[in-house]
Amino acid sequence: MMRIVVTGANGFIGRKLVRALLDQPSLSGADGAPVPLSDLRLFDVVPPEVPAGAADGPVTVRCMAGDLSDPAALGAVMNGGVDVVFHLAAVVSAQAEEDFGLGMRVNFDATRALLDACRQSAPDGAARLVFTSSVAVFGGDLPEVVRDDTAPVPQSSYGVQKAMGELLVQDYARRGFVDGRTVRLPTIVVRPGPPNKAASTFASSIIREPLNGEDAVCPVPAETGLFVSSPRRIVANLIQAATLPAARFGRDRTVMLPGLSVTVAEMIKALRAEAGDGAVARIRFQDDPRVRAIVASWPARFETARATALGFQADASFAEVIRAFVEDEMGAPHKDPVS
Amino acid sequence: MMRIVVTGANGFIGRKLVRALLDQPSLSGADGAPVPLSDLRLFDVVPPEVPAGAADGPVTVRCMAGDLSDPAALGAVMNGGVDVVFHLAAVVSAQAEEDFGLGMRVNFDATRALLDACRQSAPDGAARLVFTSSVAVFGGDLPEVVRDDTAPVPQSSYGVQKAMGELLVQDYARRGFVDGRTVRLPTIVVRPGPPNKAASTFASSIIREPLNGEDAVCPVPAETGLFVSSPRRIVANLIQAATLPAARFGRDRTVMLPGLSVTVAEMIKALRAEAGDGAVARIRFQDDPRVRAIVASWPARFETARATALGFQADASFAEVIRAFVEDEMGAPHKDPVS
Repeated sequence: MMRIVVTGANGFIGRKLVRALLDQPSLSGADGAPVPLSDLRLFDVVPPEVPAGAADGPVTVRCMAGDLSDPAALGAVMNGGVDVVFHLAAVVSAQAEEDFGLGMRVNFDATRALLDACRQSAPDGAARLVFTSSVAVFGGDLPEVVRDDTAPVPQSSYGVQKAMGELLVQDYARRGFVDGRTVRLPTIVVRPGPPNKAASTFASSIIREPLNGEDAVCPVPAETGLFVSSPRRIVANLIQAATLPAARFGRDRTVMLPGLSVTVAEMIKALRAEAGDGAVARIRFQDDPRVRAIVASWPARFETARATALGFQADASFAEVIRAFVEDEMGAPHKDPVS
Repeated sequence: MMRIVVTGANGFIGRKLVRALLDQPSLSGADGAPVPLSDLRLFDVVPPEVPAGAADGPVTVRCMAGDLSDPAALGAVMNGGVDVVFHLAAVVSAQAEEDFGLGMRVNFDATRALLDACRQSAPDGAARLVFTSSVAVFGGDLPEVVRDDTAPVPQSSYGVQKAMGELLVQDYARRGFVDGRTVRLPTIVVRPGPPNKAASTFASSIIREPLNGEDAVCPVPAETGLFVSSPRRIVANLIQAATLPAARFGRDRTVMLPGLSVTVAEMIKALRAEAGDGAVARIRFQDDPRVRAIVASWPARFETARATALGFQADASFAEVIRAFVEDEMGAPHKDPVS
């Protein structure tokens, strides 16, 4: 019997994770043997919908809406106990910068409340919690290649709140309160749907729009570097984070996930190989100094030796990233055996 | 007119800092010019005493006792506005490990409340706050030499709480809420008074007791390394942290203070040169595996290039550390022109 809570279940990654959990409804238990999912609770600020087909399946799926920093909402989602929490809920970077109090409350205080609730729910410290952090913890005067032991010096409130959450997870795990694990996520490409206000939105647009026969604008130079991961790899790595034996993490519960270091030029080259010159012709370069400055401040190269040693995986190539999008979001048949 | 608050004013460093502030009662203002101290508020859990002679001096000294995480106590200490806060108050390492909730409340929540109070008190963000952090933020699989860009992976709740406080100071400063500055302190040697329960207490005992004609036990091998600073240097560096122009910190408000990397053998050699064979004969080595393990886990070598560039200073030699103790705590005349 495995009880799972997903916060931020209505988000883009939350939905994909829920789908993956329902498609193969078991996770490793404390002894490493697979345990069937019995109870899946989906939590978000807006009520998540029960995924298609889930109502007839073997897993009890419950959907709940609320504010995690509200003790009543937190109590409801923890009711019945919990074995694994995927904590994806967050106020995004731009919003946390705009509203400092909101970011602190959701990104930090709610994480702390959730850790305390896990501790209360499983006084033996066995509740596993996967916390999603971000490359946004890094900033300032960075080395050319960010390593596992590079100090986070966040240049955004979002990055600060995530870095504080990492530290809480580290301490709750070290003390045996909660079996917490933090993964820092690369930039996720290719996102489905329309462009959003994130500075990184172009990295999905320049692939997604041409594949859909639409025009796209690239606001940064072709030599701009990014550190990316497909949604498919992110979901697989979240499940890996939840199922790794605790001892494997050693004295550090934070792991920078592996990704692909690519330039915009390399992304476009891969698009040409996958979809031809016509697709690439849809991309127009139009410099946006504001976006260029933000993107240039992000670290683009990482050495993620620890994650690799722990079995986390990156996409093999940017071609694979494009194919994952085509298969998962454009209705093409799944050809990739690693999915 | 300069209004200063010192939290933890009753502690060993707090008292020395207050003495130094009263001895030369001015600090640099926003434009770098010296501003006379007008108002000094001393805060601690137990009521601080007005320092000798202060009642007749030009500075109004007020003493207050309470719990900083209590809004009423915080309101009282901030009443009248503030220009500079030295935030030294903390639950020490062993206590924060023993009582997790107390450590979180005092070391983290009260720091957050204090930052919010500074922000409210000076909405232009001009209030300066010096936060004292610690080498305890470092731990886990450390490189041989800890650098300014080495990631903190704390192995104690105290270290986690201090690292979270650093992040808050970083964000409040970046956003222009509070002009915060964090200094990470080396191990402070030589402390006056009797030994305490800290694992590092021997580092003071093996100097202090022989100088006082008493026996001392050294629980670690002679080759054990430590990263130390005299109290005198700590106080000078706290004042340096408070008076540096904000722009000098660049995008990182946390500075690891410089110190001396010494072995126990080097400390004893300096004691022999200062106080002779008779003093050294008072030290007996008696292995304590528990203390040895804790001390061995501490980083002993640091490269503190940033602090040096910002004008922070280390003791020139361990002989200078011993002489500072003799002069400041044993009533010997001040001979050292750098004091």
